[in-house]
Amino acid sequence: MLTKEKISERFKALQEAICEQIAACDGKADFISDRWERPGGGGGDSRVITSGNVIEKGGVNFSAVHGDTPAKILAALNLPETKFYASGVSIVLHPQNPHVPIIHMNVRYFEMESGQWWFGGGIDLTPHYIVGEDAAYFHKALKEVCDRHDEHYYERFKKWADDYFFLKHRDETRGIGGIFFDRLSGNKDDLFAFVMDVGEAFAPLYVHFMDKYRNHSFSDEEKQWQAIRRGRYVEFNLVWDKGTKFGLDTNGRTESILMSMPPAAEWMYDYHPAPGSAEAQTLDLLKKNIDWINAN
Amino acid sequence: MLTKEKISERFKALQEAICEQIAACDGKADFISDRWERPGGGGGDSRVITSGNVIEKGGVNFSAVHGDTPAKILAALNLPETKFYASGVSIVLHPQNPHVPIIHMNVRYFEMESGQWWFGGGIDLTPHYIVGEDAAYFHKALKEVCDRHDEHYYERFKKWADDYFFLKHRDETRGIGGIFFDRLSGNKDDLFAFVMDVGEAFAPLYVHFMDKYRNHSFSDEEKQWQAIRRGRYVEFNLVWDKGTKFGLDTNGRTESILMSMPPAAEWMYDYHPAPGSAEAQTLDLLKKNIDWINAN
Repeated sequence: MLTKEKISERFKALQEAICEQIAACDGKADFISDRWERPGGGGGDSRVITSGNVIEKGGVNFSAVHGDTPAKILAALNLPETKFYASGVSIVLHPQNPHVPIIHMNVRYFEMESGQWWFGGGIDLTPHYIVGEDAAYFHKALKEVCDRHDEHYYERFKKWADDYFFLKHRDETRGIGGIFFDRLSGNKDDLFAFVMDVGEAFAPLYVHFMDKYRNHSFSDEEKQWQAIRRGRYVEFNLVWDKGTKFGLDTNGRTESILMSMPPAAEWMYDYHPAPGSAEAQTLDLLKKNIDWINAN
Repeated sequence: MLTKEKISERFKALQEAICEQIAACDGKADFISDRWERPGGGGGDSRVITSGNVIEKGGVNFSAVHGDTPAKILAALNLPETKFYASGVSIVLHPQNPHVPIIHMNVRYFEMESGQWWFGGGIDLTPHYIVGEDAAYFHKALKEVCDRHDEHYYERFKKWADDYFFLKHRDETRGIGGIFFDRLSGNKDDLFAFVMDVGEAFAPLYVHFMDKYRNHSFSDEEKQWQAIRRGRYVEFNLVWDKGTKFGLDTNGRTESILMSMPPAAEWMYDYHPAPGSAEAQTLDLLKKNIDWINAN
Protein backbone atom coordinates (compact mmCIF):
# COMPACT_ATOMS: atom_id res chain seq x y z
CA MET A 1 0.00 0.00 0.00
CA LEU A 2 1.13 3.48 -0.86
CA THR A 3 1.39 5.20 2.53
CA LYS A 4 2.16 8.85 3.14
CA GLU A 5 5.52 7.78 4.59
CA LYS A 6 6.37 5.94 1.37
CA ILE A 7 5.43 8.99 -0.70
CA SER A 8 7.62 11.25 1.44
CA GLU A 9 10.51 8.81 1.18
CA ARG A 10 10.29 8.82 -2.62
CA PHE A 11 10.08 12.63 -2.63
CA LYS A 12 13.18 12.83 -0.46
CA ALA A 13 15.07 10.54 -2.83
CA LEU A 14 13.85 12.66 -5.74
CA GLN A 15 15.29 15.75 -4.06
CA GLU A 16 18.66 14.00 -3.67
CA ALA A 17 18.73 12.86 -7.27
CA ILE A 18 17.82 16.31 -8.60
CA CYS A 19 20.47 18.06 -6.49
CA GLU A 20 23.12 15.63 -7.72
CA GLN A 21 22.27 16.18 -11.37
CA ILE A 22 22.06 19.97 -11.12
CA ALA A 23 25.26 20.26 -9.04
CA ALA A 24 27.13 17.95 -11.45
CA CYS A 25 26.06 20.08 -14.42
CA ASP A 26 26.83 23.34 -12.64
CA GLY A 27 30.31 22.10 -11.81
CA LYS A 28 31.10 24.76 -9.22
CA ALA A 29 28.41 25.37 -6.64
CA ASP A 30 27.22 22.55 -4.45
CA PHE A 31 23.97 22.45 -2.54
CA ILE A 32 24.11 23.35 1.12
CA SER A 33 21.61 21.47 3.26
CA ASP A 34 19.61 23.41 5.83
CA ARG A 35 17.47 21.03 7.86
CA TRP A 36 14.64 22.55 9.84
CA GLU A 37 11.83 21.51 12.14
CA ARG A 38 8.31 22.82 12.12
CA PRO A 39 7.11 23.79 15.61
CA GLY A 40 3.66 22.29 14.89
CA GLY A 41 5.03 18.97 13.54
CA GLY A 42 7.43 17.65 10.91
CA GLY A 43 10.08 19.62 9.08
CA GLY A 44 12.18 19.76 5.99
CA ASP A 45 15.50 20.00 4.26
CA SER A 46 16.15 23.12 2.19
CA ARG A 47 18.98 22.65 -0.31
CA VAL A 48 20.42 25.96 -1.31
CA ILE A 49 22.76 26.74 -4.21
CA THR A 50 24.55 30.09 -4.60
CA SER A 51 27.08 31.61 -7.00
CA GLY A 52 27.55 28.59 -9.24
CA ASN A 53 28.93 28.53 -12.75
CA VAL A 54 25.42 28.36 -14.13
CA ILE A 55 23.04 28.85 -11.19
CA GLU A 56 23.27 32.21 -9.45
CA LYS A 57 20.75 31.39 -6.71
CA GLY A 58 18.28 28.63 -6.19
CA GLY A 59 16.81 26.05 -3.92
CA VAL A 60 15.51 22.50 -3.91
CA ASN A 61 13.18 22.17 -0.95
CA PHE A 62 11.88 18.98 0.60
CA SER A 63 9.34 19.04 3.39
CA ALA A 64 7.05 16.66 5.23
CA VAL A 65 4.90 18.49 7.74
CA HIS A 66 1.85 17.58 9.77
CA GLY A 67 -0.36 18.84 12.57
CA ASP A 68 -3.57 20.71 13.05
CA THR A 69 -4.98 21.89 9.74
CA PRO A 70 -4.76 25.70 9.45
CA ALA A 71 -8.21 27.29 9.84
CA LYS A 72 -7.90 28.86 6.37
CA ILE A 73 -7.57 25.43 4.70
CA LEU A 74 -10.49 24.03 6.67
CA ALA A 75 -12.63 27.00 5.64
CA ALA A 76 -11.56 26.78 1.98
CA LEU A 77 -12.32 23.05 1.83
CA ASN A 78 -15.38 23.27 4.03
CA LEU A 79 -13.99 20.62 6.37
CA PRO A 80 -14.43 20.05 10.11
CA GLU A 81 -11.35 20.21 12.32
CA THR A 82 -8.89 17.49 11.31
CA LYS A 83 -5.14 16.82 11.20
CA PHE A 84 -3.22 17.17 7.95
CA TYR A 85 -0.07 15.74 6.42
CA ALA A 86 1.73 17.44 3.54
CA SER A 87 4.91 16.49 1.74
CA GLY A 88 6.58 17.78 -1.38
CA VAL A 89 9.58 18.93 -3.35
CA SER A 90 9.69 22.51 -4.55
CA ILE A 91 12.35 24.08 -6.77
CA VAL A 92 13.22 27.47 -8.23
CA LEU A 93 16.56 28.09 -9.97
CA HIS A 94 17.78 31.52 -11.11
CA PRO A 95 20.68 31.27 -13.60
CA GLN A 96 23.59 33.68 -14.03
CA ASN A 97 23.33 33.89 -17.83
CA PRO A 98 20.21 35.70 -19.09
CA HIS A 99 19.99 33.18 -21.95
CA VAL A 100 19.44 30.33 -19.49
CA PRO A 101 15.77 30.33 -18.40
CA ILE A 102 14.47 30.43 -14.82
CA ILE A 103 12.76 27.18 -13.92
CA HIS A 104 10.24 26.07 -11.31
CA MET A 105 9.09 22.59 -10.36
CA ASN A 106 6.86 21.32 -7.60
CA VAL A 107 5.36 17.97 -6.63
CA ARG A 108 3.23 17.65 -3.52
CA TYR A 109 0.95 15.29 -1.63
CA PHE A 110 -1.69 16.33 0.86
CA GLU A 111 -3.66 14.06 3.18
CA MET A 112 -6.29 14.85 5.79
CA GLU A 113 -6.88 12.57 8.76
CA SER A 114 -10.56 12.68 7.83
CA GLY A 115 -9.72 10.74 4.65
CA GLN A 116 -9.31 13.19 1.75
CA TRP A 117 -6.01 13.15 -0.13
CA TRP A 118 -4.67 14.65 -3.34
CA PHE A 119 -1.60 15.33 -5.44
CA GLY A 120 -0.54 18.60 -6.99
CA GLY A 121 2.43 19.98 -8.86
CA GLY A 122 3.86 21.12 -12.14
CA ILE A 123 6.84 22.47 -14.05
CA ASP A 124 7.03 25.84 -15.76
CA LEU A 125 9.77 27.69 -17.59
CA THR A 126 10.49 31.43 -17.54
CA PRO A 127 12.98 32.35 -20.25
CA HIS A 128 14.29 35.92 -20.14
CA TYR A 129 14.45 35.53 -23.92
CA ILE A 130 11.90 33.21 -25.52
CA VAL A 131 13.32 30.99 -28.26
CA GLY A 132 10.70 29.13 -30.28
CA GLU A 133 12.57 25.86 -30.66
CA ASP A 134 13.36 25.78 -26.93
CA ALA A 135 9.72 26.34 -26.04
CA ALA A 136 8.73 23.52 -28.37
CA TYR A 137 11.40 21.24 -26.89
CA PHE A 138 10.22 21.98 -23.35
CA HIS A 139 6.52 21.47 -24.05
CA LYS A 140 7.16 18.32 -26.11
CA ALA A 141 9.06 16.81 -23.20
CA LEU A 142 6.22 17.61 -20.80
CA LYS A 143 3.65 16.26 -23.26
CA GLU A 144 5.60 12.99 -23.48
CA VAL A 145 5.55 12.66 -19.68
CA CYS A 146 1.82 13.40 -19.61
CA ASP A 147 0.97 11.08 -22.51
CA ARG A 148 2.56 8.13 -20.76
CA HIS A 149 -0.17 8.45 -18.12
CA ASP A 150 -3.26 9.96 -19.68
CA GLU A 151 -3.81 11.33 -23.18
CA HIS A 152 -5.84 14.26 -21.80
CA TYR A 153 -3.33 15.38 -19.17
CA TYR A 154 -1.12 17.61 -21.32
CA GLU A 155 -3.91 19.69 -22.81
CA ARG A 156 -5.64 20.04 -19.45
CA PHE A 157 -2.53 20.80 -17.39
CA LYS A 158 -0.96 23.08 -20.01
CA LYS A 159 -4.07 25.26 -19.95
CA TRP A 160 -4.05 25.15 -16.14
CA ALA A 161 -0.44 26.43 -16.15
CA ASP A 162 -1.32 29.24 -18.58
CA ASP A 163 -4.11 30.35 -16.27
CA TYR A 164 -2.11 29.93 -13.06
CA PHE A 165 1.23 31.51 -13.98
CA PHE A 166 -0.38 34.75 -15.04
CA LEU A 167 0.29 38.32 -13.85
CA LYS A 168 -3.17 39.82 -14.12
CA HIS A 169 -1.86 43.34 -13.31
CA ARG A 170 0.59 43.15 -16.25
CA ASP A 171 -1.61 41.09 -18.57
CA GLU A 172 1.45 38.87 -19.01
CA THR A 173 2.13 35.20 -18.40
CA ARG A 174 5.16 34.55 -16.17
CA GLY A 175 6.94 32.73 -18.97
CA ILE A 176 6.06 30.03 -21.49
CA GLY A 177 4.08 28.02 -18.93
CA GLY A 178 4.35 24.26 -18.80
CA ILE A 179 2.02 22.04 -16.79
CA PHE A 180 0.19 22.69 -13.52
CA PHE A 181 -2.24 20.46 -11.64
CA ASP A 182 -3.83 20.38 -8.22
CA ARG A 183 -6.32 18.33 -6.19
CA LEU A 184 -5.75 15.19 -8.29
CA SER A 185 -7.52 12.24 -6.71
CA GLY A 186 -8.43 8.79 -8.00
CA ASN A 187 -6.13 5.81 -8.34
CA LYS A 188 -3.36 6.70 -5.93
CA ASP A 189 -0.70 4.44 -7.44
CA ASP A 190 -1.32 5.75 -10.95
CA LEU A 191 -1.34 9.36 -9.84
CA PHE A 192 1.83 8.93 -7.82
CA ALA A 193 3.53 7.29 -10.81
CA PHE A 194 2.60 10.34 -12.88
CA VAL A 195 3.76 12.81 -10.24
CA MET A 196 7.12 11.00 -9.86
CA ASP A 197 7.49 10.95 -13.64
CA VAL A 198 7.05 14.75 -13.65
CA GLY A 199 9.62 15.07 -10.86
CA GLU A 200 12.13 12.84 -12.63
CA ALA A 201 11.72 14.71 -15.92
CA PHE A 202 12.84 17.94 -14.27
CA ALA A 203 16.61 17.58 -13.98
CA PRO A 204 17.40 16.27 -17.50
CA LEU A 205 15.14 18.94 -18.95
CA TYR A 206 16.84 21.80 -17.12
CA VAL A 207 20.33 20.38 -17.64
CA HIS A 208 19.59 20.59 -21.38
CA PHE A 209 19.02 24.36 -21.10
CA MET A 210 21.91 24.88 -18.68
CA ASP A 211 24.31 23.24 -21.13
CA LYS A 212 22.85 24.86 -24.22
CA TYR A 213 23.23 28.44 -22.97
CA ARG A 214 25.79 28.44 -20.15
CA ASN A 215 28.52 29.86 -22.37
CA HIS A 216 26.31 32.04 -24.52
CA SER A 217 27.70 35.61 -24.61
CA PHE A 218 25.53 38.38 -23.25
CA SER A 219 25.57 42.17 -23.03
CA ASP A 220 24.97 44.57 -20.13
CA GLU A 221 21.59 45.36 -21.69
CA GLU A 222 20.65 41.67 -21.65
CA LYS A 223 21.71 41.42 -18.01
CA GLN A 224 19.52 44.43 -17.21
CA TRP A 225 16.56 42.89 -19.01
CA GLN A 226 17.11 39.77 -16.88
CA ALA A 227 16.91 41.98 -13.75
CA ILE A 228 13.61 43.46 -14.92
CA ARG A 229 12.16 40.03 -15.72
CA ARG A 230 13.27 38.90 -12.26
CA GLY A 231 11.23 41.81 -10.90
CA ARG A 232 8.21 40.35 -12.66
CA TYR A 233 9.03 36.96 -11.15
CA VAL A 234 8.98 38.59 -7.70
CA GLU A 235 5.65 40.24 -8.51
CA PHE A 236 4.07 36.94 -9.55
CA ASN A 237 5.30 35.04 -6.52
CA LEU A 238 4.40 37.68 -3.93
CA VAL A 239 1.14 38.95 -5.44
CA TRP A 240 -0.45 35.96 -7.17
CA ASP A 241 1.15 32.65 -6.21
CA LYS A 242 -1.34 30.89 -3.96
CA GLY A 243 1.26 28.67 -2.32
CA THR A 244 3.50 31.59 -1.38
CA LYS A 245 0.65 33.68 -0.01
CA PHE A 246 -0.81 30.79 1.89
CA GLY A 247 2.56 29.86 3.36
CA LEU A 248 3.37 33.39 4.50
CA ASP A 249 -0.10 33.81 5.93
CA THR A 250 -0.07 30.61 7.99
CA ASN A 251 3.36 30.84 9.61
CA GLY A 252 5.08 28.66 7.04
CA ARG A 253 8.88 28.67 7.06
CA THR A 254 9.61 32.04 5.46
CA GLU A 255 13.15 31.31 4.24
CA SER A 256 12.06 28.13 2.48
CA ILE A 257 9.02 29.79 0.92
CA LEU A 258 11.03 32.80 -0.27
CA MET A 259 13.85 30.66 -1.64
CA SER A 260 12.07 31.42 -4.92
CA MET A 261 13.20 35.06 -4.80
CA PRO A 262 15.90 36.00 -7.33
CA PRO A 263 19.34 37.13 -6.08
CA ALA A 264 18.58 40.62 -7.40
CA ALA A 265 15.75 42.33 -9.25
CA GLU A 266 15.18 45.77 -10.73
CA TRP A 267 12.24 48.04 -11.40
CA MET A 268 12.06 50.97 -13.84
CA TYR A 269 9.01 53.18 -14.16
CA ASP A 270 6.86 52.27 -17.17
CA TYR A 271 9.67 50.48 -19.00
CA HIS A 272 9.05 49.45 -22.60
CA PRO A 273 11.66 47.70 -24.72
CA ALA A 274 12.41 49.18 -28.16
CA PRO A 275 9.93 48.02 -30.81
CA GLY A 276 11.26 45.06 -32.75
CA SER A 277 13.96 44.26 -30.17
CA ALA A 278 14.49 40.75 -28.82
CA GLU A 279 13.03 41.99 -25.52
CA ALA A 280 9.87 43.27 -27.24
CA GLN A 281 9.55 39.96 -29.11
CA THR A 282 9.68 38.08 -25.81
CA LEU A 283 7.04 40.38 -24.27
CA ASP A 284 4.78 39.71 -27.26
CA LEU A 285 4.97 35.99 -26.51
CA LEU A 286 3.99 36.23 -22.84
CA LYS A 287 0.44 35.21 -23.67
CA LYS A 288 -1.90 32.41 -22.76
CA ASN A 289 -2.99 29.71 -25.18
CA ILE A 290 0.06 29.57 -27.43
CA ASP A 291 0.49 26.10 -28.93
CA TRP A 292 4.26 26.03 -28.43
CA ILE A 293 4.71 22.57 -29.89
CA ASN A 294 3.07 23.30 -33.24
CA ALA A 295 3.93 26.99 -33.46
CA ASN A 296 7.58 26.08 -34.11
CA MET B 1 -18.71 73.96 1.46
CA LEU B 2 -15.86 71.50 1.12
CA THR B 3 -16.65 69.64 -2.11
CA LYS B 4 -14.77 66.68 -3.51
CA GLU B 5 -13.53 68.92 -6.32
CA LYS B 6 -12.08 71.37 -3.79
CA ILE B 7 -10.34 68.53 -1.94
CA SER B 8 -8.82 67.23 -5.20
CA GLU B 9 -7.68 70.72 -6.14
CA ARG B 10 -5.89 71.10 -2.82
CA PHE B 11 -4.32 67.64 -3.19
CA LYS B 12 -3.08 68.57 -6.67
CA ALA B 13 -1.51 71.76 -5.31
CA LEU B 14 0.06 69.72 -2.50
CA GLN B 15 1.62 67.40 -5.08
CA GLU B 16 3.10 70.41 -6.92
CA ALA B 17 4.50 71.93 -3.74
CA ILE B 18 6.06 68.65 -2.62
CA CYS B 19 7.69 68.00 -6.00
CA GLU B 20 9.17 71.49 -6.00
CA GLN B 21 10.67 71.12 -2.55
CA ILE B 22 12.09 67.64 -3.16
CA ALA B 23 13.50 68.55 -6.60
CA ALA B 24 15.06 71.73 -5.21
CA CYS B 25 16.75 69.77 -2.44
CA ASP B 26 17.87 66.99 -4.78
CA GLY B 27 19.43 69.56 -7.12
CA LYS B 28 19.86 67.21 -10.08
CA ALA B 29 16.85 65.12 -10.95
CA ASP B 30 13.58 66.80 -11.80
CA PHE B 31 10.19 65.15 -11.73
CA ILE B 32 8.80 63.96 -15.03
CA SER B 33 5.05 64.20 -15.30
CA ASP B 34 3.12 61.25 -16.71
CA ARG B 35 -0.57 62.13 -17.01
CA TRP B 36 -2.96 59.25 -17.44
CA GLU B 37 -6.67 58.65 -17.81
CA ARG B 38 -8.64 55.90 -16.16
CA PRO B 39 -10.89 54.05 -18.63
CA GLY B 40 -13.71 53.90 -16.03
CA GLY B 41 -13.48 57.63 -15.15
CA GLY B 42 -10.99 60.24 -13.99
CA GLY B 43 -7.22 59.92 -14.06
CA GLY B 44 -4.02 61.15 -12.54
CA ASP B 45 -0.59 62.64 -12.81
CA SER B 46 2.34 60.43 -11.82
CA ARG B 47 5.47 62.46 -11.10
CA VAL B 48 8.53 60.29 -11.42
CA ILE B 49 12.07 61.06 -10.28
CA THR B 50 15.09 58.95 -11.32
CA SER B 51 18.85 59.05 -10.80
CA GLY B 52 18.99 62.22 -8.72
CA ASN B 53 21.79 63.37 -6.46
CA VAL B 54 19.85 62.13 -3.45
CA ILE B 55 16.82 60.24 -4.80
CA GLU B 56 17.61 57.15 -6.84
CA LYS B 57 14.00 56.38 -7.74
CA GLY B 58 10.68 57.65 -6.55
CA GLY B 59 7.28 58.95 -7.36
CA VAL B 60 4.74 61.50 -6.21
CA ASN B 61 1.36 60.38 -7.51
CA PHE B 62 -1.81 62.40 -7.72
CA SER B 63 -5.09 60.84 -8.78
CA ALA B 64 -8.78 61.69 -8.84
CA VAL B 65 -10.81 58.77 -10.11
CA HIS B 66 -14.50 57.96 -10.14
CA GLY B 67 -16.99 55.49 -11.53
CA ASP B 68 -18.77 52.33 -10.55
CA THR B 69 -17.58 51.09 -7.17
CA PRO B 70 -15.56 47.85 -7.54
CA ALA B 71 -17.57 44.86 -6.31
CA LYS B 72 -14.86 44.07 -3.74
CA ILE B 73 -15.31 47.47 -2.02
CA LEU B 74 -19.08 47.14 -2.02
CA ALA B 75 -18.79 43.70 -0.43
CA ALA B 76 -16.23 44.86 2.15
CA LEU B 77 -18.38 47.83 3.17
CA ASN B 78 -21.66 45.97 2.84
CA LEU B 79 -23.04 48.63 0.49
CA PRO B 80 -25.53 48.41 -2.40
CA GLU B 81 -24.31 49.38 -5.89
CA THR B 82 -23.21 53.02 -5.92
CA LYS B 83 -20.71 55.32 -7.66
CA PHE B 84 -17.46 56.29 -5.94
CA TYR B 85 -15.01 59.17 -6.07
CA ALA B 86 -11.46 58.84 -4.77
CA SER B 87 -8.63 61.35 -4.75
CA GLY B 88 -5.22 61.36 -3.15
CA VAL B 89 -1.50 61.94 -3.17
CA SER B 90 0.81 58.98 -2.69
CA ILE B 91 4.60 59.07 -2.39
CA VAL B 92 7.50 56.66 -2.06
CA LEU B 93 11.11 57.84 -2.37
CA HIS B 94 14.13 55.52 -2.50
CA PRO B 95 17.42 57.36 -1.86
CA GLN B 96 20.86 56.59 -3.30
CA ASN B 97 22.69 56.78 0.02
CA PRO B 98 21.89 53.97 2.47
CA HIS B 99 22.06 56.47 5.32
CA VAL B 100 19.12 58.42 3.92
CA PRO B 101 15.88 56.63 4.88
CA ILE B 102 13.14 55.47 2.50
CA ILE B 103 9.95 57.46 3.05
CA HIS B 104 6.28 56.97 2.27
CA MET B 105 3.39 59.40 2.53
CA ASN B 106 -0.23 59.17 1.49
CA VAL B 107 -3.33 61.33 1.91
CA ARG B 108 -6.63 60.25 0.40
CA TYR B 109 -10.31 61.07 0.28
CA PHE B 110 -13.09 58.65 -0.61
CA GLU B 111 -16.74 59.48 -1.25
CA MET B 112 -19.66 57.26 -2.24
CA GLU B 113 -22.64 58.62 -4.14
CA SER B 114 -24.80 57.03 -1.46
CA GLY B 115 -23.39 59.50 1.07
CA GLN B 116 -20.51 57.90 2.96
CA TRP B 117 -17.14 59.66 2.87
CA TRP B 118 -13.86 59.34 4.71
CA PHE B 119 -10.21 60.39 4.81
CA GLY B 120 -7.17 58.18 5.16
CA GLY B 121 -3.42 58.54 5.03
CA GLY B 122 -0.17 58.60 6.93
CA ILE B 123 3.58 59.00 6.82
CA ASP B 124 6.11 56.34 7.73
CA LEU B 125 9.89 56.17 7.62
CA THR B 126 12.07 53.18 6.71
CA PRO B 127 15.70 53.84 7.61
CA HIS B 128 18.19 51.26 6.36
CA TYR B 129 20.07 52.17 9.53
CA ILE B 130 18.01 53.30 12.51
CA VAL B 131 19.47 56.26 14.41
CA GLY B 132 17.75 57.00 17.71
CA GLU B 133 17.85 60.78 17.50
CA ASP B 134 16.47 60.71 13.96
CA ALA B 135 13.61 58.44 14.98
CA ALA B 136 12.81 60.82 17.86
CA TYR B 137 12.97 63.84 15.53
CA PHE B 138 10.62 62.18 13.03
CA HIS B 139 8.06 61.07 15.60
CA LYS B 140 8.16 64.41 17.44
CA ALA B 141 7.39 66.22 14.20
CA LEU B 142 4.44 63.91 13.52
CA LYS B 143 3.21 64.30 17.10
CA GLU B 144 3.27 68.08 16.73
CA VAL B 145 1.15 67.83 13.59
CA CYS B 146 -1.28 65.50 15.34
CA ASP B 147 -1.44 67.54 18.55
CA ARG B 148 -2.48 70.64 16.64
CA HIS B 149 -5.72 68.78 15.77
CA ASP B 150 -6.48 66.25 18.48
CA GLU B 151 -4.47 65.26 21.52
CA HIS B 152 -5.35 61.59 21.01
CA TYR B 153 -4.38 61.38 17.35
CA TYR B 154 -0.67 60.68 17.73
CA GLU B 155 -1.00 57.79 20.15
CA ARG B 156 -3.84 56.25 18.15
CA PHE B 157 -2.29 56.70 14.70
CA LYS B 158 1.22 55.75 15.81
CA LYS B 159 -0.11 52.41 17.05
CA TRP B 160 -2.09 52.01 13.83
CA ALA B 161 1.12 52.51 11.82
CA ASP B 162 2.99 49.94 13.95
CA ASP B 163 0.25 47.41 13.28
CA TYR B 164 -0.13 48.25 9.60
CA PHE B 165 3.50 48.48 8.44
CA PHE B 166 4.32 45.02 9.74
CA LEU B 167 5.81 42.02 7.91
CA LYS B 168 4.09 39.18 9.70
CA HIS B 169 6.19 36.54 7.90
CA ARG B 170 9.42 38.20 9.14
CA ASP B 171 8.07 39.34 12.51
CA GLU B 172 9.54 42.75 11.60
CA THR B 173 8.09 46.21 11.23
CA ARG B 174 8.87 47.84 7.87
CA GLY B 175 10.77 50.65 9.56
CA ILE B 176 10.23 52.95 12.52
CA GLY B 177 6.57 53.51 11.63
CA GLY B 178 5.02 56.93 11.90
CA ILE B 179 1.28 57.57 11.70
CA PHE B 180 -1.44 55.76 9.77
CA PHE B 181 -5.20 56.38 9.73
CA ASP B 182 -8.16 55.29 7.65
CA ARG B 183 -11.94 55.70 7.47
CA LEU B 184 -11.83 59.01 9.40
CA SER B 185 -15.28 60.63 9.38
CA GLY B 186 -16.80 63.44 11.40
CA ASN B 187 -16.29 67.17 10.92
CA LYS B 188 -15.11 67.29 7.31
CA ASP B 189 -13.40 70.69 7.53
CA ASP B 190 -11.47 69.73 10.64
CA LEU B 191 -10.42 66.37 9.23
CA PHE B 192 -9.33 67.90 5.95
CA ALA B 193 -7.29 70.50 7.81
CA PHE B 194 -5.54 67.66 9.65
CA VAL B 195 -4.93 65.66 6.47
CA MET B 196 -3.50 68.70 4.68
CA ASP B 197 -1.30 69.42 7.68
CA VAL B 198 0.10 65.87 7.41
CA GLY B 199 0.68 66.37 3.70
CA GLU B 200 2.42 69.70 4.19
CA ALA B 201 4.65 68.30 6.93
CA PHE B 202 6.07 65.72 4.54
CA ALA B 203 8.52 67.70 2.39
CA PRO B 204 10.32 69.68 5.14
CA LEU B 205 10.60 66.49 7.18
CA TYR B 206 12.18 64.49 4.38
CA VAL B 207 14.37 67.37 3.22
CA HIS B 208 15.83 67.35 6.74
CA PHE B 209 16.97 63.73 6.29
CA MET B 210 18.07 64.23 2.68
CA ASP B 211 20.34 67.08 3.73
CA LYS B 212 21.58 65.43 6.89
CA TYR B 213 22.83 62.25 5.14
CA ARG B 214 23.26 63.02 1.43
CA ASN B 215 27.04 63.30 1.73
CA HIS B 216 27.50 60.65 4.40
CA SER B 217 30.14 58.14 3.28
CA PHE B 218 29.10 54.52 2.89
CA SER B 219 30.72 51.18 2.16
CA ASP B 220 29.86 48.39 -0.29
CA GLU B 221 28.56 46.41 2.67
CA GLU B 222 26.19 49.23 3.61
CA LYS B 223 25.00 49.43 0.02
CA GLN B 224 24.33 45.70 0.06
CA TRP B 225 22.39 45.96 3.30
CA GLN B 226 20.31 48.68 1.64
CA ALA B 227 19.54 46.23 -1.21
CA ILE B 228 18.41 43.61 1.29
CA ARG B 229 16.21 46.08 3.15
CA ARG B 230 14.74 47.12 -0.19
CA GLY B 231 13.84 43.46 -0.69
CA ARG B 232 11.88 43.63 2.55
CA TYR B 233 10.17 46.78 1.31
CA VAL B 234 9.11 44.86 -1.80
CA GLU B 235 7.84 42.03 0.38
CA PHE B 236 5.73 44.36 2.51
CA ASN B 237 4.23 46.19 -0.44
CA LEU B 238 3.41 43.10 -2.51
CA VAL B 239 2.39 40.74 0.27
CA TRP B 240 0.78 42.89 2.95
CA ASP B 241 -0.04 46.41 1.75
CA LYS B 242 -3.82 46.55 1.36
CA GLY B 243 -3.75 49.48 -1.07
CA THR B 244 -1.29 47.76 -3.41
CA LYS B 245 -3.15 44.45 -3.37
CA PHE B 246 -6.49 46.11 -3.86
CA GLY B 247 -5.18 48.24 -6.73
CA LEU B 248 -3.61 45.32 -8.56
CA ASP B 249 -6.69 43.20 -8.04
CA THR B 250 -9.16 45.78 -9.37
CA ASN B 251 -7.39 46.90 -12.56
CA GLY B 252 -5.77 49.94 -10.96
CA ARG B 253 -2.99 51.63 -12.95
CA THR B 254 -0.13 49.20 -12.41
CA GLU B 255 2.76 51.58 -13.10
CA SER B 256 1.44 54.13 -10.61
CA ILE B 257 0.75 51.51 -7.96
CA LEU B 258 4.19 49.91 -8.38
CA MET B 259 6.00 53.25 -8.39
CA SER B 260 6.72 52.22 -4.79
CA MET B 261 9.13 49.50 -5.96
CA PRO B 262 12.83 50.21 -5.33
CA PRO B 263 15.19 50.59 -8.31
CA ALA B 264 16.88 47.33 -7.27
CA ALA B 265 16.52 44.79 -4.47
CA GLU B 266 18.41 41.70 -3.38
CA TRP B 267 17.63 38.46 -1.59
CA MET B 268 20.06 36.12 0.17
CA TYR B 269 18.98 32.84 1.71
CA ASP B 270 18.58 33.08 5.48
CA TYR B 271 20.75 36.18 5.82
CA HIS B 272 21.69 37.28 9.32
CA PRO B 273 23.89 40.29 10.02
CA ALA B 274 26.88 39.77 12.34
CA PRO B 275 25.92 40.02 16.04
CA GLY B 276 26.55 43.51 17.37
CA SER B 277 26.85 45.06 13.91
CA ALA B 278 24.97 48.23 12.98
CA GLU B 279 22.77 46.05 10.76
CA ALA B 280 21.93 43.73 13.67
CA GLN B 281 21.15 46.74 15.86
CA THR B 282 18.71 48.03 13.26
CA LEU B 283 17.03 44.62 13.00
CA ASP B 284 16.60 44.59 16.78
CA LEU B 285 14.69 47.86 16.55
CA LEU B 286 12.21 46.71 13.89
CA LYS B 287 9.57 46.13 16.56
CA LYS B 288 6.15 47.45 17.38
CA ASN B 289 5.39 49.67 20.35
CA ILE B 290 8.71 51.45 20.71
CA ASP B 291 8.24 54.90 22.22
CA TRP B 292 10.70 56.61 19.87
CA ILE B 293 10.23 60.06 21.35
CA ASN B 294 11.08 59.10 24.91
CA ALA B 295 13.49 56.27 24.15
CA ASN B 296 16.07 58.80 22.93
